[in-house]
Amino acid sequence: MSTAWTSRYAQRTKGLKSSAIRELLKITQNPEIISFAGGLPAPDVFPTARFQEACRNVLERNAHQALQYGATEGYEPLRQMIARHIARYGIKAQTDNVLITSGSQQALDLIGKLLINPGDRVLVEAPTYLGALQAFNVYGAEYVSVLSDQDGLRTDLLDKPLRSGPKFMYVLPNFQNPGGTTLSAGRRHELVLQADRYGIPIIEDDPYGQLRYEGEHLTPLVVLDRENLRRDDGYSIGNVIYLSTFSKTLAPGIRLGWIVAPPEVIAKLVQLKQGADLHTSTFTQMVAYEVAKDNFLDEHVKLIRKVYRERRDVMLESLKQYFPPEVTWTHPQGGLFLWVTLPEGMSCQKLFQVALKENVAFVPGDSFYAPNGFTEEASRHFRLNFSYGQPEQIREGIRRLSVAVKHQMEELHAVAH
Amino acid sequence: MSTAWTSRYAQRTKGLKSSAIRELLKITQNPEIISFAGGLPAPDVFPTARFQEACRNVLERNAHQALQYGATEGYEPLRQMIARHIARYGIKAQTDNVLITSGSQQALDLIGKLLINPGDRVLVEAPTYLGALQAFNVYGAEYVSVLSDQDGLRTDLLDKPLRSGPKFMYVLPNFQNPGGTTLSAGRRHELVLQADRYGIPIIEDDPYGQLRYEGEHLTPLVVLDRENLRRDDGYSIGNVIYLSTFSKTLAPGIRLGWIVAPPEVIAKLVQLKQGADLHTSTFTQMVAYEVAKDNFLDEHVKLIRKVYRERRDVMLESLKQYFPPEVTWTHPQGGLFLWVTLPEGMSCQKLFQVALKENVAFVPGDSFYAPNGFTEEASRHFRLNFSYGQPEQIREGIRRLSVAVKHQMEELHAVAH
Repeated sequence: MSTAWTSRYAQRTKGLKSSAIRELLKITQNPEIISFAGGLPAPDVFPTARFQEACRNVLERNAHQALQYGATEGYEPLRQMIARHIARYGIKAQTDNVLITSGSQQALDLIGKLLINPGDRVLVEAPTYLGALQAFNVYGAEYVSVLSDQDGLRTDLLDKPLRSGPKFMYVLPNFQNPGGTTLSAGRRHELVLQADRYGIPIIEDDPYGQLRYEGEHLTPLVVLDRENLRRDDGYSIGNVIYLSTFSKTLAPGIRLGWIVAPPEVIAKLVQLKQGADLHTSTFTQMVAYEVAKDNFLDEHVKLIRKVYRERRDVMLESLKQYFPPEVTWTHPQGGLFLWVTLPEGMSCQKLFQVALKENVAFVPGDSFYAPNGFTEEASRHFRLNFSYGQPEQIREGIRRLSVAVKHQMEELHAVAH
Repeated sequence: MSTAWTSRYAQRTKGLKSSAIRELLKITQNPEIISFAGGLPAPDVFPTARFQEACRNVLERNAHQALQYGATEGYEPLRQMIARHIARYGIKAQTDNVLITSGSQQALDLIGKLLINPGDRVLVEAPTYLGALQAFNVYGAEYVSVLSDQDGLRTDLLDKPLRSGPKFMYVLPNFQNPGGTTLSAGRRHELVLQADRYGIPIIEDDPYGQLRYEGEHLTPLVVLDRENLRRDDGYSIGNVIYLSTFSKTLAPGIRLGWIVAPPEVIAKLVQLKQGADLHTSTFTQMVAYEVAKDNFLDEHVKLIRKVYRERRDVMLESLKQYFPPEVTWTHPQGGLFLWVTLPEGMSCQKLFQVALKENVAFVPGDSFYAPNGFTEEASRHFRLNFSYGQPEQIREGIRRLSVAVKHQMEELHAVAH
């Protein structure tokens, strides 16, 4: 007899499905289509020449180390650099607070592995990052969703969800994916206080924090938490684990993210990472260090901000110019995305089909909600990416999209009458 | 209050511990110590110049693709190359049978995630690769251990363990880690027949298969299985999932491994990999392709074989020259390791302490046994790596080790009298 593999799959794979976005990306690879669906950085701002130089230096000077097995914790100088780098935001981390991960997605996977027992509830924003849901689902997570608005997670709605005893909260305070919204200073304080009151830890995911195009940088939750706990012993303890990545500031193709956490948590995550992939590529870590060092990263981030800010502005202007007044959208102060809200009765899924005919694509909003989290709400939204396309493509894409939107609105009115 | 993270760890982290080997590696970083503990390839055979050239080419021609997000399945030309490459061993794989992983360790993690429910039994060799145990433990695996000898897994002992209904078998047929043994042709047939009879799938882990220094290549289980099932529809179905890696033929620091499986299994593994790390570094995949192409890999493997074969021979000769006749060891036909058996009553852990004083190190055998698997047996063995050291270091290291062994044997005799 031959084995039926499917009959042998573990319980946790039930209901597992491919990310809607990754499936979408396949559809939208048609070059005729202007796609706002991906979350891709602009390749024209990749620091290619600097990567060339870095590869040459690493392989000339340190090939034996770069091509060999390395420590699970990560390449020591890179960990030190990250600790120094985040100190400017008030995060008092030492090297042993930092674990290098194979992209920020692995950080989410390791967090899920570390904390989630089947049936545990995770408190998430509605909408939230779907990659986090994918990472947590496999460990049997269930969800408590809390709505967000222009100022991020609605902390006034937190009390009951927190009383239900979630294992942890997962939040993206800066230029949220998909919402494009930023958690206000007041709500940050409130969130940290409430987390402390109920003893619920926070996972603070901050992939876009450095990509701010206007306004003042707001204090990270991990810092507010330490202030709240009146700790001045550095980052020895706290309610918050902080995640970030080089994917949006250097390049996603090198798959480098990191976790900042108390040393005891890092030690446990290291054990889990040993079993998961031994360690992240020594070579890409050393190359990234070589690329980022001597303040190159800071200078490069300034360039990215300039380019993305222009693209955001073009998208905002085009939306204003072409879209009917019944449609609204967020005004992101940074990041890669904005979030559109359709009038009541309209469906982002139906719109998606019409938009494809107009050769333009986006991600329908319902991908970004946890199971049972505001399904009706979900159907009126979609996400637009403004980092990837050239300004003229963005303008043309939004024009096409407006045609699809108007078409759908007319149809809806026709049915109503 | 501040959150006690430890109280929030998931059930699966209980009893989790750091790999004994990775802890050992820290001890043995003292440059005075000759270490046979690691499983490290020799850095002097890393194809550094070829990597330089590959990085230059990839970044000059394809930087926008290499630094960008990529498909979870892996870089298409690399998958094709792997499919072509393994065809010479009779494995009829197509591109969609191949999934690129972040090192072979991730392959083991994904397999565990896919197949193991808490409490499921996995049939393993005694001894077996401890990285596999680490990967499977976290999913709640329990184990059925089957002893191996000079010819690999003892298939004559399989009947009862198979009747106990393991979820799958995990075997390393070529130059096993840690045993250095190779599963004989006869036992390969027997294993595949029995697996089929009981409907138990096989995970065939083959990191070292190309590094054969003597004797004929033996047919992989995945091919025997297909022959047994009389399938000529390629690799559309079968009882065997096959794993391998570039870590031992190109370089471990790039973290590239792969899984060969029926397309339906690959599709499921892709979903799991999406949640685990989105995809493996596009950059390292494209560089590895560029390094390996135009038959460079084949030529390079010939060089590695030559160098490692010499080192193996030096180790075997030195063991014969210095070690007392009561101690025995395996004669590996390839790979990186050999396995030493001490006389009854001796303990590899005690020997390890004495050896450290003589400035030489190895991995005590008990690390390589599944929980409850032949604990007494375990204490009489240790693993030696012969790929990493220079020949003169190997000779000197074995001499030092023989001093420690004799010292321990004398002490044992003194106690006995």
